Amino acid sequence: MQDAQDIIDAAHRAADAARAAILPFFRTTDLTADNKRPSGFDPVTEADRAAERAMRAVLGALRPEDAILGEEFGAIPGTSGLTWILDPIDGTRAFLCGAASWGILIGLSDGRNIVYGMIDQPYIRERFEGGLGLACLATDAGIRPLAVRSGVDLAGATLLTTFPEVGTEAEAEAFRRVSARTRLTRYGLDCYAYGLLALGQVDLVIEAGLQAYDIAGPMAVVQAAGGIVTDWQGGSAHQGGQVIAAATPALHRAALDLLNGDTA
Amino acid sequence: MQDAQDIIDAAHRAADAARAAILPFFRTTDLTADNKRPSGFDPVTEADRAAERAMRAVLGALRPEDAILGEEFGAIPGTSGLTWILDPIDGTRAFLCGAASWGILIGLSDGRNIVYGMIDQPYIRERFEGGLGLACLATDAGIRPLAVRSGVDLAGATLLTTFPEVGTEAEAEAFRRVSARTRLTRYGLDCYAYGLLALGQVDLVIEAGLQAYDIAGPMAVVQAAGGIVTDWQGGSAHQGGQVIAAATPALHRAALDLLNGDTA
Repeated sequence: MQDAQDIIDAAHRAADAARAAILPFFRTTDLTADNKRPSGFDPVTEADRAAERAMRAVLGALRPEDAILGEEFGAIPGTSGLTWILDPIDGTRAFLCGAASWGILIGLSDGRNIVYGMIDQPYIRERFEGGLGLACLATDAGIRPLAVRSGVDLAGATLLTTFPEVGTEAEAEAFRRVSARTRLTRYGLDCYAYGLLALGQVDLVIEAGLQAYDIAGPMAVVQAAGGIVTDWQGGSAHQGGQVIAAATPALHRAALDLLNGDTA
Repeated sequence: MQDAQDIIDAAHRAADAARAAILPFFRTTDLTADNKRPSGFDPVTEADRAAERAMRAVLGALRPEDAILGEEFGAIPGTSGLTWILDPIDGTRAFLCGAASWGILIGLSDGRNIVYGMIDQPYIRERFEGGLGLACLATDAGIRPLAVRSGVDLAGATLLTTFPEVGTEAEAEAFRRVSARTRLTRYGLDCYAYGLLALGQVDLVIEAGLQAYDIAGPMAVVQAAGGIVTDWQGGSAHQGGQVIAAATPALHRAALDLLNGDTA
């Protein structure tokens, strides 16, 4: 892509703006969580909205020809063929608990693939980045390359997801078929799970009920680190829904078989 | 306590030594997890052992008359009537995933009460401390007072635990009676959950199957912040087992009623 550095610079500027918008709200004691849905609990905070506004302002100024799709404020069209896919706070529930597994997600689609993406954790000051030639984690201590680990089989694998209920009852049952065959399953990590996969710390992330903006940034990061991200049928996960991210083709295949009913 | 400052200084020196021992192991890619139990997965890493050795060396030099009880290397007697209770890495599974919800736990018992304690997260560089007149969180950004929040009823409460299975099937069932009545339940936070309670970010932590060294440090932190820590019968939680930590007496009472079978 000709303007790769321009894209990367814009993404960092957008993430910086989102960090500045969000952090004043983190761990305050009077944060209001609205309820977007009539049933259940789907918190949206002013921090989400402020952060998405801040990112849209940066991208609108630096990349006026690109389209934008964001969680809170919908889609605006573009002319470049590129679309920024934004989730200002993935893991709002973790955010409301004061836990630092939430993140700012930024993905860039060229209409066929997610060509670049970022998972940014402002409180810990960690920025996972992948695509356009990059695969790295930037912290205050420096920049570290991202690479999935290999050589771990399913029986030795660590599996992450966010909610124990996963999705529907059938989805939870499918998840448990995989979980029962792995060494360790952990919950509650939101987008941070994909960062840990890209860092070579865990082997599988399996979720359901995702939106496109939940997976665009993480997909770019995991793929750049050498991992695989698909839906539970092995097809495209660009639109969210049922998503599996795996460190290796062998783990991906073994987990897909179990998700799709192989109880052998 | 006459030598309060001396005790506090020793605890900080011990935690500093444990940080230095542990961090070189965190997020390496070749960490070995031994298996302490013949069945199940109970990882102990060289990092646990190195950190407990480091803390014992500091405390042995600075506080030679105090007893020590540690997870990895057992008990050594003392003559002062004070016992240091150490868990070098609470949340070894989180540690092995590269997630930063594990912590170094230090508690000090006078034989009747836990009079001082600490939850230290070396990677994020957060140190929660409570007792002997202190209730604070120290980070690189400064020192913040700890205080539980009030005014949240059970229907609005956030509940944390580590494992969805909680403990035995009966314990899980009791936990679910509480969980069903709260606004939000989150998993996977290990000792960090007690820090978030002391910070006023969440309202309840309920766990089962704990050891004495899992709860001593967190108990001191939560109590210093104004919270309540007991077993599921409302008695002492010093020995671990079934533990509930609550922000307020009303939440504590409501959760105890549900844990003990009130399904009304």
